[in-house]
Amino acid sequence: MKFTTTLRVRYSETDQMGVVYHGNYFAWFEVGRVELLRSLGFSYQELEAQDDCILPVVEASCRYRRPARYDDLLTLATSVKALRGSIVVFTYKLYVGEVLLAEGETKHVVVDGALQQRRLPERHHAAILAILE
Amino acid sequence: MKFTTTLRVRYSETDQMGVVYHGNYFAWFEVGRVELLRSLGFSYQELEAQDDCILPVVEASCRYRRPARYDDLLTLATSVKALRGSIVVFTYKLYVGEVLLAEGETKHVVVDGALQQRRLPERHHAAILAILE
Amino acid sequence: MKFTTTLRVRYSETDQMGVVYHGNYFAWFEVGRVELLRSLGFSYQELEAQDDCILPVVEASCRYRRPARYDDLLTLATSVKALRGSIVVFTYKLYVGEVLLAEGETKHVVVDGALQQRRLPERHHAAILAILE
Amino acid sequence: MKFTTTLRVRYSETDQMGVVYHGNYFAWFEVGRVELLRSLGFSYQELEAQDDCILPVVEASCRYRRPARYDDLLTLATSVKALRGSIVVFTYKLYVGEVLLAEGETKHVVVDGALQQRRLPERHHAAILAILE
Repeated sequence: MKFTTTLRVRYSETDQMGVVYHGNYFAWFEVGRVELLRSLGFSYQELEAQDDCILPVVEASCRYRRPARYDDLLTLATSVKALRGSIVVFTYKLYVGEVLLAEGETKHVVVDGALQQRRLPERHHAAILAILE
Repeated sequence: MKFTTTLRVRYSETDQMGVVYHGNYFAWFEVGRVELLRSLGFSYQELEAQDDCILPVVEASCRYRRPARYDDLLTLATSVKALRGSIVVFTYKLYVGEVLLAEGETKHVVVDGALQQRRLPERHHAAILAILE
Repeated sequence: MKFTTTLRVRYSETDQMGVVYHGNYFAWFEVGRVELLRSLGFSYQELEAQDDCILPVVEASCRYRRPARYDDLLTLATSVKALRGSIVVFTYKLYVGEVLLAEGETKHVVVDGALQQRRLPERHHAAILAILE
Repeated sequence: MKFTTTLRVRYSETDQMGVVYHGNYFAWFEVGRVELLRSLGFSYQELEAQDDCILPVVEASCRYRRPARYDDLLTLATSVKALRGSIVVFTYKLYVGEVLLAEGETKHVVVDGALQQRRLPERHHAAILAILE
C-alpha cells in the first residue's frame, strides 16, 4: 500500500543554491510517516503521550535525483518496508507531478520513555503489518 | 556590559534570496544569550535540568539592516536590558566586522516546569542585575 | 479582509521545552503571506522570477501568548496592515481552534534583483490596496 | 587524514524528544566539509562564487548511535572517502568526548552554474586527492 500526502515547499526550506536544502527532506519524511499513521487511525502524538512509545530514527538516508524548488507542490508516497520486533522501516518517494525527485528510507526502533526497546501497541503493530509492502 | 560571541553562517541558514533566512536570526540570538549566561558562570542547560527554571520567549523582534551572507563570520553582542521579577529582556546587535546587520530583542518569562512564574535562582538574578545596561 | 490558512505542527518544529521553537513561527508567517497572495491570484514565486520583485523582511516581531504544540492544527489569519510606496506590512494571528496563540508582524521593502527599491507591479499593488484592513 | 571541528548543540536543534532532531545532523555535516576545505586553504563560498562550482548532495545517510543533546560540545571528524571525476564522497563521525554519536556519509556531484557536471578546479582536486583516506 502506498500512502500519499502533499506538501508545499516553503521559502524557509530553500538555500542559496536556489533549491531545497537537502537536510530538510527528512522533516518531510517525518510528515509522511505521521500522516500514514493518521490514515490508519493512529496519532503519533498519542502514541508518545498515551502509549509511552517513541520512535527515534536510528538510520536515515536519501537519494536526491532532481531538486525540489520553492513553491513546488510535492507528492510524498510513504510506505512501511519492514516491521520486525521493535524495528520499523519506512520508505519514501517524493514527486512533483510524475517526476521522481528523491527516495528515502528511515529505520526506527520503538522504545519507551526510559529508552528500553519495546514493541508497538498491538493495534498499531497489526495495522502496520497489514499494509506491509 | 556587552558580551560578544562569534558565529559562522551555515549554508543551511541561507535561502534562495542568497542571504540568511530572516527567521534564523532568532536561533543565533538564543546562542548569544546562552553564551552570555555561560560567561557569567551559568549553564542554561543546568538551569533547566537542575534549577527547574525555563525561559520561554514571550516576545521577539528583529530589525534587519543589511543581509547576513553565507560563510560570514558574525559578531553577536548580547546584553540584558531589563530584569524585573520573573521578566528578563535581552537585546542583540549582530555585526560583520564593524557593519551592523541586525538588532533584536527577546522578552522572556521565567517559569518552572509546571509553567508557574518564578524568579531566577538568586545567584543568577544577582549576577544578571550586576551586568544590566 | 482576513485570509486564513491551516498548518499542521511538525515534529521538527518542536524543541526540548515540548513546544514549538519560537523562531519557527516566522516560517509559518511566510506561508501565510504567500497563501494570501495566492488567494489574490498571484504567485510569490512568479513575482520573484518574472517580475523581478523580491520582498526581504526588514522588521519582524511576534508575541507568544500560548505555546503551539506538536501535531496542533493551526489556523493562521494573515492581513495586510499597510502598503505605502515600496513598504508592505503584514500582520498575523495564529490560533488553535478559537484560542489565540501568537500575534506577529513583518515589514517588507519591495526591491528588484539589484536591491533597488521599487513598487510592486501595478496589478499586485491594486489588489493589495483593495484588501487593506 | 581526519579533520575535526567542534560544534555546540543549539536549543533550536532539539526536538520534544529532548534530543537533537535527526534531520539537523546534515547541517552539521555541511559545516564539517566546509571547514575541512577551509583547512586545505579553500573557501567553499569562493568555489561557488568565483570558480562556478557547486556541490549539490546526491546521496546522504546517517546512522544514529546515541543522541546528541542540548549544549553538548560535539567533535565532528570529517574525511574524504572518494574523489572520482566529478563525484566526491565525504564521511563523518560525530563524537561527544570519546563517545561516538553518529556516522554519516554524503555523496556530491560537482556541477557548474548550468548544472553541467565538471571537475573541481585542479588545485582543489589535487589537495583533496592528497588527503584521501
